[in-house]
Amino acid sequence: MPADMLTQGQHILSQQPFSAILNARLDAFAPGSAELSVPVAPALLQQHGFVHGGVLSYLADNALTFAGGSVLGDSVTSEFKINYLRPAKDAERLLAVATVVGSGKTQAVCRCDIFVLRGGERTLCAAAQGTIRKAG
Amino acid sequence: MPADMLTQGQHILSQQPFSAILNARLDAFAPGSAELSVPVAPALLQQHGFVHGGVLSYLADNALTFAGGSVLGDSVTSEFKINYLRPAKDAERLLAVATVVGSGKTQAVCRCDIFVLRGGERTLCAAAQGTIRKAG
Amino acid sequence: MPADMLTQGQHILSQQPFSAILNARLDAFAPGSAELSVPVAPALLQQHGFVHGGVLSYLADNALTFAGGSVLGDSVTSEFKINYLRPAKDAERLLAVATVVGSGKTQAVCRCDIFVLRGGERTLCAAAQGTIRKAG
Amino acid sequence: MPADMLTQGQHILSQQPFSAILNARLDAFAPGSAELSVPVAPALLQQHGFVHGGVLSYLADNALTFAGGSVLGDSVTSEFKINYLRPAKDAERLLAVATVVGSGKTQAVCRCDIFVLRGGERTLCAAAQGTIRKAG
Repeated sequence: MPADMLTQGQHILSQQPFSAILNARLDAFAPGSAELSVPVAPALLQQHGFVHGGVLSYLADNALTFAGGSVLGDSVTSEFKINYLRPAKDAERLLAVATVVGSGKTQAVCRCDIFVLRGGERTLCAAAQGTIRKAG
Repeated sequence: MPADMLTQGQHILSQQPFSAILNARLDAFAPGSAELSVPVAPALLQQHGFVHGGVLSYLADNALTFAGGSVLGDSVTSEFKINYLRPAKDAERLLAVATVVGSGKTQAVCRCDIFVLRGGERTLCAAAQGTIRKAG
Repeated sequence: MPADMLTQGQHILSQQPFSAILNARLDAFAPGSAELSVPVAPALLQQHGFVHGGVLSYLADNALTFAGGSVLGDSVTSEFKINYLRPAKDAERLLAVATVVGSGKTQAVCRCDIFVLRGGERTLCAAAQGTIRKAG
Repeated sequence: MPADMLTQGQHILSQQPFSAILNARLDAFAPGSAELSVPVAPALLQQHGFVHGGVLSYLADNALTFAGGSVLGDSVTSEFKINYLRPAKDAERLLAVATVVGSGKTQAVCRCDIFVLRGGERTLCAAAQGTIRKAG
């Protein structure tokens, strides 16, 4: 039931006040993967006019956790690392695509690619990898 | 001139719209170290009432970059990793303390501890490590 | 000239005394990717009979560097992270497959999957991601 | 009983064939910390005459696990990241000093500094951070 699963995921996202500030949207949610995006607004930039790294790391953190949660249920981020490949500038939207690389009963290792969306094209701007742990 | 350096760092922070949303404050800034804090507000939480991981990763990203920038000048975050140790709950403020572990002409490796501040006590809730690169 | 490139890569590997101890073999080397493998021998184990994590981290470090070096030329590892997914046991050989995720003039971000090879099958046992920097 | 604990740790290390190849030595082992060192020999180098990154990552992996194990008991490495600060050259010995940053019932987050020892002086050459998980 991918449609129901997406609706359920979007409900969880709507309960995160911090995600609401960023106008984050869950675009896809299926067993083993999640896509999360944020529209770029002036409030999300840093002093050079690029999207702040903290927005990218938010996307990585949350997309990784949704991907892990898609196979583990209610989950928390245990740890992750992120590499910034290029400044996120002139972006209309940032899209994080996360997938489960491997999982057991209590943990999942996931990867995430973050893209700049601009004029119908996507450019990779960051890559992340981390561990998601079943809550409780 | 630590006082001037702190003022200069606070000016840079004030030019980051995303940091303004979070009401981030640069508490200390000296060669090789930086302290950055955020007051905890309902808007920064996730669905379980804890501070969202994205806020912690923002603090890590930005405190690491200020620490690296304190020895390199204008800088960008190249990469970092963060381990979440415990949920940040009932916090009044989150404080990130970052220090340079080693640096060359173009890069600095930095570490960051993130604390929950509550009733005059600080509790470690996340630990980060990353690479800061001189801009340009 | 993939064949020549592979031969050149194998020559570099042969000049690494530590790789000789591990009987490491460069199985593939092309622009943007590298495959490195090690035959599992009793000397590579830890106290529970699994391949020592240090062997897996060696494979990640070196495969990432070959992948980055395939686009940058002579290179060094700047940093990497590795997630261990399952114990590497009953393995005949360990295979690390590394690819470039993104690169500029002086740096490349690469990922690496490490597989246990056993009876013609491959099972993912570790996943890594890191930064490779042009030497000099 | 720090002395007994060190003896016990050294016994575990002696059961790791891969650590025997590297002539690794557990120099200190107490609740929350571990020190592990390796004498530099020609067999541990790479093609430029520096100690191979895989030796440093072995030290990080194993020292982090001993540190975590000092509070958790029998443990495995879940994940770690390592930043290389400078080439390990002209070293007599490499020393990894690992400490527990935070721990719960099943996991510990640890950090590790790796030093080049030369003529009685120590120089930091790598920094690591990772998660250790109780085995079983």
